[in-house]
Amino acid sequence: MTKIYNAALIIIGDEILSGRTKDKNINHIANKLAQSGIDLVEVRVVADDEGAIIRAVQALKDEVSYVFTTGGIGPTHDDITCQSVARALGVELEENEQAFAMLESHYGAENFTKARRKMATLPLGAELIPNSVSVAPGFVIDNVYVMAGVPRIMEVMMDYVVQVIEGGEIILSDTVSFDVPESFIAEALEVVQNKFEEKVSIGSYPYFEEGVLGVNVVLRSKSKERLAQALGEVEEIFSSI
Amino acid sequence: MTKIYNAALIIIGDEILSGRTKDKNINHIANKLAQSGIDLVEVRVVADDEGAIIRAVQALKDEVSYVFTTGGIGPTHDDITCQSVARALGVELEENEQAFAMLESHYGAENFTKARRKMATLPLGAELIPNSVSVAPGFVIDNVYVMAGVPRIMEVMMDYVVQVIEGGEIILSDTVSFDVPESFIAEALEVVQNKFEEKVSIGSYPYFEEGVLGVNVVLRSKSKERLAQALGEVEEIFSSI
Repeated sequence: MTKIYNAALIIIGDEILSGRTKDKNINHIANKLAQSGIDLVEVRVVADDEGAIIRAVQALKDEVSYVFTTGGIGPTHDDITCQSVARALGVELEENEQAFAMLESHYGAENFTKARRKMATLPLGAELIPNSVSVAPGFVIDNVYVMAGVPRIMEVMMDYVVQVIEGGEIILSDTVSFDVPESFIAEALEVVQNKFEEKVSIGSYPYFEEGVLGVNVVLRSKSKERLAQALGEVEEIFSSI
Repeated sequence: MTKIYNAALIIIGDEILSGRTKDKNINHIANKLAQSGIDLVEVRVVADDEGAIIRAVQALKDEVSYVFTTGGIGPTHDDITCQSVARALGVELEENEQAFAMLESHYGAENFTKARRKMATLPLGAELIPNSVSVAPGFVIDNVYVMAGVPRIMEVMMDYVVQVIEGGEIILSDTVSFDVPESFIAEALEVVQNKFEEKVSIGSYPYFEEGVLGVNVVLRSKSKERLAQALGEVEEIFSSI
């Protein structure tokens, strides 16, 4: 049997919860994981609060193959992800030699201030996730992958991470869209779903655009053949209404 | 002492987790809550899965004043929010008379199919949240507010909800943006944060735009006076570098 890989994502950021900033990281990470055959099973957005971060990490880390976090790894007083993850896992913090050397070389010894040195203080045993944009690295400890919150920096970290982690079978998908309310097709769709059971998962996602209610039917499967069969049956529903 | 109101949001949707759809609801709801003086403390995105929905509702409902959910209240086989919320709260489902009458009148008795009647089956004791876009209502049961996932429909439901729920003191905020990496201001910013302690919360949010690292410093407070004082001190930091 093929091994199943799954993941959870923790977005750390008061700015998302207060509404000031629109999240741009969830969709990018969800797509990268899907392309790697890793099933994203839950996302949590939590505050820049040690208790909240610890609770989320501890609740999720044993439930999934990989936990990803974004945000809170910079030099300022509200960047507390690193210490919170260390505490959640029960490991000490240390000045990471490799991170220290990279940051010192980047800023120059005379400008390598206390705040900047904070970015080299990582959980004991952490491995670095390189940051080609602004040097300060992310890190991996156990199955927890700690990345920056700035989308451009998170993206280069995620590009690295998907190269080094193991993924599973990729789920194929197809979408059929029609400008009818989903209640027109609900019963017929359920018949198709029941026929294919767990081989093909069929989701129905209504939309409302320019005054028209429509529906996207999304079919997902690991089998190209089953997907094509189910797609044919869903297209028949639409052609019969 | 003024009562504190807080909230959690559960986004129910495989389509967000698979990366197929970009979430548009978190930011809208976060802003509406902020404008009502309600502190959004956590968001979870969970799958269209009964166990996942039940776990999220049960974990959050006693932690906050209000739990909001979006998604999964339509007529198709994958719409399982209603039954899951009922089970999470230990209440039975019933055909809600008011919802039944509204939907029957909308579709006409002869077209009021089994799938459509599903949208009138709600937890016992639920109160309706009106839907001026496509009729099928959301509902409230205990402190759980169940809304549609289609953004346009969620928005009209949210407009109604913020009229009927109690909110608290509104948090005022100000933002100062500068094109310097946040490590330049980290130490001075911490001094200001320590001075104002819990009266003003100061967040530092780095950004990367057009090849330049910059920082948004966001100050939040319930006191206009303290906010202005802290803002002055933060502006001084920037004018001195």
